[in-house]
Amino acid sequence: MPKPPSPWDKRGARHRPERGDREPASAPARHAGAKAELRMYGLNAVRAAFARRPEAIRKVYLAETRIPQLQPLLKWCVAHRIGYRVVDEGDLQKLAASSHHEGVVADVLREEPLPLSAWLQGLPAGRQCALWLDGVGNPHNLGAILRASAHFGAAAILLPAHSTLALSGAAARVAEGGAEAVPFVRLPEAATGIAQLRDAGFALAATVVGGGGDLFAAELPERLVYVLGAEGEGMDRELAAACDLRLSIPGSGAVESLNVASATAVLLAQWAQGG
Amino acid sequence: MPKPPSPWDKRGARHRPERGDREPASAPARHAGAKAELRMYGLNAVRAAFARRPEAIRKVYLAETRIPQLQPLLKWCVAHRIGYRVVDEGDLQKLAASSHHEGVVADVLREEPLPLSAWLQGLPAGRQCALWLDGVGNPHNLGAILRASAHFGAAAILLPAHSTLALSGAAARVAEGGAEAVPFVRLPEAATGIAQLRDAGFALAATVVGGGGDLFAAELPERLVYVLGAEGEGMDRELAAACDLRLSIPGSGAVESLNVASATAVLLAQWAQGG
Repeated sequence: MPKPPSPWDKRGARHRPERGDREPASAPARHAGAKAELRMYGLNAVRAAFARRPEAIRKVYLAETRIPQLQPLLKWCVAHRIGYRVVDEGDLQKLAASSHHEGVVADVLREEPLPLSAWLQGLPAGRQCALWLDGVGNPHNLGAILRASAHFGAAAILLPAHSTLALSGAAARVAEGGAEAVPFVRLPEAATGIAQLRDAGFALAATVVGGGGDLFAAELPERLVYVLGAEGEGMDRELAAACDLRLSIPGSGAVESLNVASATAVLLAQWAQGG
Repeated sequence: MPKPPSPWDKRGARHRPERGDREPASAPARHAGAKAELRMYGLNAVRAAFARRPEAIRKVYLAETRIPQLQPLLKWCVAHRIGYRVVDEGDLQKLAASSHHEGVVADVLREEPLPLSAWLQGLPAGRQCALWLDGVGNPHNLGAILRASAHFGAAAILLPAHSTLALSGAAARVAEGGAEAVPFVRLPEAATGIAQLRDAGFALAATVVGGGGDLFAAELPERLVYVLGAEGEGMDRELAAACDLRLSIPGSGAVESLNVASATAVLLAQWAQGG
């Protein structure tokens, strides 16, 4: 198994050779492990990953000040021979490639998205809501969408067959642990996916900036998939046409629309209220 | 009046002296104009500023590809002797200090926040909703809050007496024009501000992560101020205690809370529906 890069493999090794790094000099380049592992950061993100799937933790870097709060994680690391390292602010920033590391960075095994059929088989009967992300790309939006999905108990994030969208460290941090609560599900081709969802009792609602039914007046189906288009571009027309209903969030017209993450929170809140 | 900095005043001047900049070499340093002017960027942000207060535009930089879309603005610039300049991608990025410039940057006169009493005097009777921002700092959150406020027709953003929060270029860009639709209002000291708001018929709702009344079950007052705490820290206790009601957005518990901008969208959506 490829080892995760250490902070001293690359830039760091030149700047601070005096630290006596124990990582092998031949550690693979960062991208080698990138498919299998996600570099997470943020206190709630790392804690949520540890709480749900501790065996997925591969390496931990933390600030000294975080030691008390991360005792359970560090004890697990010791017991299971997972490397952890207390590092300084500069290293955390390099490791996370972000100043928003919140004192902890972890390399965590990625979870593959579930196939739609497997997800549907395991899904309890009754009220369920899922999000079909037809092009959301910004990691901050994805993170906020995951957080809202977790908050309102959405059952899944559905990813189109060829979507390259995947959880990033930035999105996981912004999700504040929400990424662990809501599974990613891989859709087959759109027509097949829609048919399978309908067979499972779901109705699909295209969410459009204007011209849809008033979300606040709509009676929402018990099992509902909200289809969300790309920021700026909106939804694919063919996909929108294939949906069972079209919904818009009524507004003043002073701006064209809500941000996609804000819109998602409003849509999920409406579903959570029973329509 | 201090002139806005040109892209070539500082770093740029050294890198590309061959461009023959016509700005005076003695142009003041960037911070000199920073109080009076805001460096805006983003197509909708700049367009909204131009639509509402064209006389506030001081300088425009744009990509060649934006010329057709910005014809009205450029005509105004010519007619009113406002400088504009077609620049390349690299210059736009430097000017905006962001890659999210969307092909246009403008220096625009800042608007001072209105005093609370002046705002209340001009406010129409009937249903009104405002946001009291008790510590929101992140420009992306502020931008998304402004966009949601504009979308749902909120009447103002109320800023505590000593808050240093102000519109930034990043927040204006994220607001997608919403910053022009919702005025900033400066509060006096909290007790006085609360008294003035109550005199004007407003009730104050503290928005708390847990332990408040269920937002979805609450009957919301016709004139309502939602008080929003800082991300991570929550609301000032004394301020929360002084509010008329306390509200929480019910959730699954899988994450502690919504992001403050998502929460704001949900709160405003609930108010927009008449409670």
